Amino acid sequence: MRASNWLVLEKKIKFGDCDSAGVMHFHNLLRWAHESWEESIEIYGINLKEIFPSIKQNTKKIFPIINCEANFLYPIEFADKLEIKILPKKINNHLFEVKTTFFKNKKLVAKAKLIHCVLDIVDRKKVDLPESLELWIEASNINRKIEYC
Amino acid sequence: MRASNWLVLEKKIKFGDCDSAGVMHFHNLLRWAHESWEESIEIYGINLKEIFPSIKQNTKKIFPIINCEANFLYPIEFADKLEIKILPKKINNHLFEVKTTFFKNKKLVAKAKLIHCVLDIVDRKKVDLPESLELWIEASNINRKIEYC
Amino acid sequence: MRASNWLVLEKKIKFGDCDSAGVMHFHNLLRWAHESWEESIEIYGINLKEIFPSIKQNTKKIFPIINCEANFLYPIEFADKLEIKILPKKINNHLFEVKTTFFKNKKLVAKAKLIHCVLDIVDRKKVDLPESLELWIEASNINRKIEYC
Amino acid sequence: MRASNWLVLEKKIKFGDCDSAGVMHFHNLLRWAHESWEESIEIYGINLKEIFPSIKQNTKKIFPIINCEANFLYPIEFADKLEIKILPKKINNHLFEVKTTFFKNKKLVAKAKLIHCVLDIVDRKKVDLPESLELWIEASNINRKIEYC
Repeated sequence: MRASNWLVLEKKIKFGDCDSAGVMHFHNLLRWAHESWEESIEIYGINLKEIFPSIKQNTKKIFPIINCEANFLYPIEFADKLEIKILPKKINNHLFEVKTTFFKNKKLVAKAKLIHCVLDIVDRKKVDLPESLELWIEASNINRKIEYC
Repeated sequence: MRASNWLVLEKKIKFGDCDSAGVMHFHNLLRWAHESWEESIEIYGINLKEIFPSIKQNTKKIFPIINCEANFLYPIEFADKLEIKILPKKINNHLFEVKTTFFKNKKLVAKAKLIHCVLDIVDRKKVDLPESLELWIEASNINRKIEYC
Repeated sequence: MRASNWLVLEKKIKFGDCDSAGVMHFHNLLRWAHESWEESIEIYGINLKEIFPSIKQNTKKIFPIINCEANFLYPIEFADKLEIKILPKKINNHLFEVKTTFFKNKKLVAKAKLIHCVLDIVDRKKVDLPESLELWIEASNINRKIEYC
Repeated sequence: MRASNWLVLEKKIKFGDCDSAGVMHFHNLLRWAHESWEESIEIYGINLKEIFPSIKQNTKKIFPIINCEANFLYPIEFADKLEIKILPKKINNHLFEVKTTFFKNKKLVAKAKLIHCVLDIVDRKKVDLPESLELWIEASNINRKIEYC
C-alpha cells in the first residue's frame, strides 16, 4: 500500500471559499486541515462513526483541539487544485498533533497544525488515544520513512 | 414592551461573509436567519440551553429544518448594516415557521423562511412544540398586530 | 461520455458540517449545492477562472443568486456518503436554475434549488448567459433524456 | 473615551457554531477574531469600505493573513456569552498583528492571534500600513497602558 493512499489528498478551491480580496479566506485552511485528517483515517480503514462523538452513538472519547496554527506562504485562489499531505504524530498518551501541508503545482503554499487532546466524553478527564488512532499514527510514520528511503 | 425588543435585530456584514463578486455569499443569509431567531427567543426570555439539544443536556426535543428558502432582492455588501425583522408562525402542533426580512436603509433587500419540525430526540417521532416556543410565537404575533394599529 | 461524468458527484459529510443535534447543519446543503455545480461545469470542461468574477480577472459577468430553496427529507449524519445529482435548466436569456438532489443509499434525503441571474459586472444590468454555460445546460438536458431511454 | 469603546466586544455562541461534541467548532474562533478587529476599527471610526478590498471600490491595499494561531483553554459551549478583548500591535511598516482574548465569566477560555501583511493590491508588493490603521493601533496601545495605571 502506498502512502498516498491515506496521506496525500486533493482539494479544489470553491467560489464560496474565497473572499473579496480574490483569495481563499484564511480560516477555511483550518477547516480543510480537519477534514483532511478525517478523510485520512477513513481511507486508512477506521470507521468514523465509531470514534467521533455524536448524540446518537455511544462513543467514549472526544478529541478537542487545544491549539491550532496556520501559515500562508503564497496566495491560494479560486479554482486552484491543491495537493494535501498529512503527518500525524503522537505527543504523549493523551495528546496528538496533525500537520497538514498544502501544495499548488508542487510548491508549498500553506501549512496547518492541529493539536488534539483526548478526553473522556463524560467527565472530561484525560484518557489514552483510541487504539485505532494510535495505529493510524504509527502506520503513517512508518510509511513516511519508507517514502524517503 | 415594544416589538423591537425581540423582533427587530441588527446585523453588520463582515469581510468573511462576502465572496469574490463583492457581495454577501448567499447561504450566509440562512445562517443569519437561524441566528436571528435564536437571538429573538433569548431576548424574549427563553433559556437557550434548555430547549436546544446538546450532548451534555437532557433536552427532549429537536427542531430539524424541513424546508428553507431565501430571496435576494438587492445586493448586500461588505460593511452594510441590516435591520432584521422576525415573524414566527405556528403551522400545526409539531411544525412552525420563522420568516426573516432584511432591510438596508429601510429598503427590503432579502428575506428568508425556515420551517422547523418538532421531534422527540430519541425516537424522532413528531411531538408538540415546547410551551416556551408557543408563547414566543403568540407574543410575537400579538405584538405585530399592535404594531400595525 | 456518460452523464455521471459531470452530473453525478459524491460528498462525504465531515465532523464540522454537523451540529449538536447530530445531523448536518441545514445551510451547508446550499453550500454543497453551489460547490456541486461548480464541480459539474469544471468536469464538463469549462475553465472556472474564465467565468467566475475575481478582483484579478477580467470577467464580464456575475451570477448572483436571486432565490434558493432546500428540502430535507431524512437526516444526513456525520460520515454519511451522499450521491449528488445535478440538473441545470435555462429559464430565459438571463436566468438559469440548478436543481441538486442528494441520495443516501439510493434514497432521496434532500434537495436544493438555486436560481441565478446573469448580470454585467460593471453596470449590474441583465445580460445573456455565457455561451459555455448554455452548452453545459443543453448537454446536461440531452444527457438526462438519454439516461431515461 | 474608554478602551471598552473599541477594544472590548461581546459575542454569543450560536447553535450553528457548535459541533456534535457539544462545543464551539474550533475554526470559528479565528472567524470571530477577524470579525472582532473589523468591529473594533469601525467603532474606532474607520470607514471599513475605504480600507478593505472589493471588486467595486478602488482600494489600493490588501491585508492577507500570513500566520494565525488559536489556543483553547476551556470549553466554549452553545449560548455562552463571551467578552472579547482586542490588542493590535505594529510589527514593522508592512506587518501588524491582532491578539484577541476570549473570556467567559471573567475566565480566559481562548485566545487567537492573526498576523497581517500589507500588500499593494495590483503588484502584491509590500507597502506601508494605511495611516488609519496606524492610528487605531497607536490609540489602542495608549489606551491599554492607561487601563493598567
